[in-house]
Amino acid sequence: MHPIESKKLWEQLSELINADEPEQINAFLNSINPADTALAVSRLNSAEQSRLLTLLRPEEAAEVIEDISDTQAADLIEELPPEQAAAILEELDSDHIADLLGELDQDDANAIIEQMDPEEAEEARQFLTYAADTAGGLMLSEYLDFRGDQRVQDVLDDLQENREDYAYYDVQYLYVTDDENRLRGVLRMRDLLFPKRTEKLSNLMISSPHKVSVDASLEDLRNFFEEHALFGVPVVNDDEKLLGIVLPEAVEEANQKQSTQQFLGLSGIIGGEEFRSMPLLARSGRRLSWLSLNIVLNIIAASVIALYQDTLSAAIALAVFLPMVSDMSGCSGNQAVAVSMRELSLGLVRPTELLRVLGKEASVGVINGLALGVLLGAVAYLWKGSPFLGLVVGGALAVNTIVAVSLGGAIPLLLKRAKLDPALVSSPLLTTVTDMCGFFFVLSFAALVLDKL
Amino acid sequence: MHPIESKKLWEQLSELINADEPEQINAFLNSINPADTALAVSRLNSAEQSRLLTLLRPEEAAEVIEDISDTQAADLIEELPPEQAAAILEELDSDHIADLLGELDQDDANAIIEQMDPEEAEEARQFLTYAADTAGGLMLSEYLDFRGDQRVQDVLDDLQENREDYAYYDVQYLYVTDDENRLRGVLRMRDLLFPKRTEKLSNLMISSPHKVSVDASLEDLRNFFEEHALFGVPVVNDDEKLLGIVLPEAVEEANQKQSTQQFLGLSGIIGGEEFRSMPLLARSGRRLSWLSLNIVLNIIAASVIALYQDTLSAAIALAVFLPMVSDMSGCSGNQAVAVSMRELSLGLVRPTELLRVLGKEASVGVINGLALGVLLGAVAYLWKGSPFLGLVVGGALAVNTIVAVSLGGAIPLLLKRAKLDPALVSSPLLTTVTDMCGFFFVLSFAALVLDKL
Repeated sequence: MHPIESKKLWEQLSELINADEPEQINAFLNSINPADTALAVSRLNSAEQSRLLTLLRPEEAAEVIEDISDTQAADLIEELPPEQAAAILEELDSDHIADLLGELDQDDANAIIEQMDPEEAEEARQFLTYAADTAGGLMLSEYLDFRGDQRVQDVLDDLQENREDYAYYDVQYLYVTDDENRLRGVLRMRDLLFPKRTEKLSNLMISSPHKVSVDASLEDLRNFFEEHALFGVPVVNDDEKLLGIVLPEAVEEANQKQSTQQFLGLSGIIGGEEFRSMPLLARSGRRLSWLSLNIVLNIIAASVIALYQDTLSAAIALAVFLPMVSDMSGCSGNQAVAVSMRELSLGLVRPTELLRVLGKEASVGVINGLALGVLLGAVAYLWKGSPFLGLVVGGALAVNTIVAVSLGGAIPLLLKRAKLDPALVSSPLLTTVTDMCGFFFVLSFAALVLDKL
Repeated sequence: MHPIESKKLWEQLSELINADEPEQINAFLNSINPADTALAVSRLNSAEQSRLLTLLRPEEAAEVIEDISDTQAADLIEELPPEQAAAILEELDSDHIADLLGELDQDDANAIIEQMDPEEAEEARQFLTYAADTAGGLMLSEYLDFRGDQRVQDVLDDLQENREDYAYYDVQYLYVTDDENRLRGVLRMRDLLFPKRTEKLSNLMISSPHKVSVDASLEDLRNFFEEHALFGVPVVNDDEKLLGIVLPEAVEEANQKQSTQQFLGLSGIIGGEEFRSMPLLARSGRRLSWLSLNIVLNIIAASVIALYQDTLSAAIALAVFLPMVSDMSGCSGNQAVAVSMRELSLGLVRPTELLRVLGKEASVGVINGLALGVLLGAVAYLWKGSPFLGLVVGGALAVNTIVAVSLGGAIPLLLKRAKLDPALVSSPLLTTVTDMCGFFFVLSFAALVLDKL
């Protein structure tokens, strides 16, 4: 909010680190909000960042890790000695540990796991085997489970006794399992309010509770929570054994992550997030890898112009309109891409419904193609006084808009069917084709009436 | 999942509607998941959609409304007689009612509110006065409040008595207010488990609880829930009076909505979401309004080419490279736009830190500009065998990449300071400037060495 004050925040932090004042650092970090912590930490140099985590107690360092993004956190964790990284990770919840280890390379992750408490290490190894956007990848192993023959009083005693541990549990339900850890039922916290304290859980629980399979997809989970207004769902394996719980927040967060990746991918930031605190060469190298592909596509598209060089020489005014026709068609096509991607993500269109999308988009293409074609044709006519130039330019834009809009609508569906990521591939693919077609239409239409231009 | 089966789903629904079978329709909708409901409803024609909501009981129709997106729901609600719309809305929670009414035009919304139960109407009017992305706009009015001198047993009696009503309350906390409805304290459900039933709430409650002001922004709320792992936060006005509660899910949902709008805006879908079930002219008209602005910007950019027509005639090979230089710079610039928008939304950069961003981006621009310039220069040289053509084209791309990347990084910050939406304005603005500069650099560099090309 107050930029000048905020700038002072990270300078203050840097001073405290350089003065070796762990108590004051911790008090300082507790006094600012998570967004400010993330900002301040990102502005430290990497020596100060490592020093910060080393100075703090593991549980305090874990709070810092929770405040910053996973990408940033993984960068910090990587720089620490494995023992220290392990001590910090042990303070996080199971889902978060798996997310962070997943961002590290295999060797770093293994080195850290080896330093963890054997039980937690075993759990972390297990969690790493689940794919990120599945129930297994999103679940927490922190939940409350009891046996059916336990009584209300037993549960209350346990809650009382372990209240400190449970304080960090994000759990609204108690699960009932059998001797083999198979899920048998569920109780809400409030179901304990009314019955006698000698009542057995098996008499109070909802049996055959809602549950999801460990390999349920993000879409399955989204559907589940849209259908059921619950505060969590138990995750079971094929043998009905209880493995963990997924909270609706985790599903929302994964959704958000997916949208972010989509947005970054569409803009040409691929292979993970980029922050300006990362090293220069890493940032420019990753961007360049995507740009290099694009320059090849651009060369292919522009080669159409080279084929028609003579036409162009004979009517040099066309050169003004070549980039306009290709740019405008690209814009029209990208609108259709966005609508298709949105409808796909909401489940309002199936990847197989190509004909429906083509029909719907072609009609928009015809209307907008005519409107834009008439507009650009009029500009060309007014500028050079040549009705033929107007016809060539306007006609090319009209036809190319129809092509671009239909193609833009279809591409995300086709990519989805081919199991490619529409966010990464749609835009370069569309632009290349609409550029080529745009150049071709302008120049080939012009070749037909060249003596009149 | 099974496209053929899904296609049958909406045909089945359409048949049931045309056969006037409300019981069967309801059973059918309950048997499919929300995503399928949304898909099926979106494929009905508008007569069938209205008929569907009319056939169902209000509480059943409300479930349909909950399953589909707000944009779609508002379209449906608009078509209904106000009495019927009011009966359906009354079955939704307060936050959802406000969202839907907010999507309608003022007159339609007022007509519906007038038909609502006076108490709910008053509440709806009040909720409509809060801005959408504030605590007021995101809060629910469904919460549990008691007085400090009430005893545990009073609360348990109340919970028992109203259990049906409260079953739909998404609430984990009990709030304690005074005679003036000022917030005095909070209790968690589990705080009722252990104390004596004669204990007064004022002795059990956490006094001076966390709370947010009714005009707290989405960013404030995001920070709040990142800092405090709570299941909800009470919302108060300037007099400390309790107005409602905000749940973390509502904040996540608003976040998600913001990302969606950002994605759609960047792709040129503005003025609200577009679904292919909307009328053709509405869809093409809205897209066209954005395209018309773009064509004007394109004309401005391309006019640079017109100024250098003679240069271009003298070295027609340049025409091949004009669109390539402008496209590639646009791509490089958009990467920088994406990184700035992401850092802004995470709070990792302040809108005032222009110099920092310019410094960081200019360095990436120099490296990537040189790399891309050498690449394209080499292609030009190899193609025509002219080192000067290579220098002109490569040099222009290098310089224009530096301009585009620096500008791309800066534009979102400048727009944010000017209180304009970066998602809508960044890309057209960037493309126009980088097109103009790209054309200018290629043609003016060429003019300098024209006799050697």
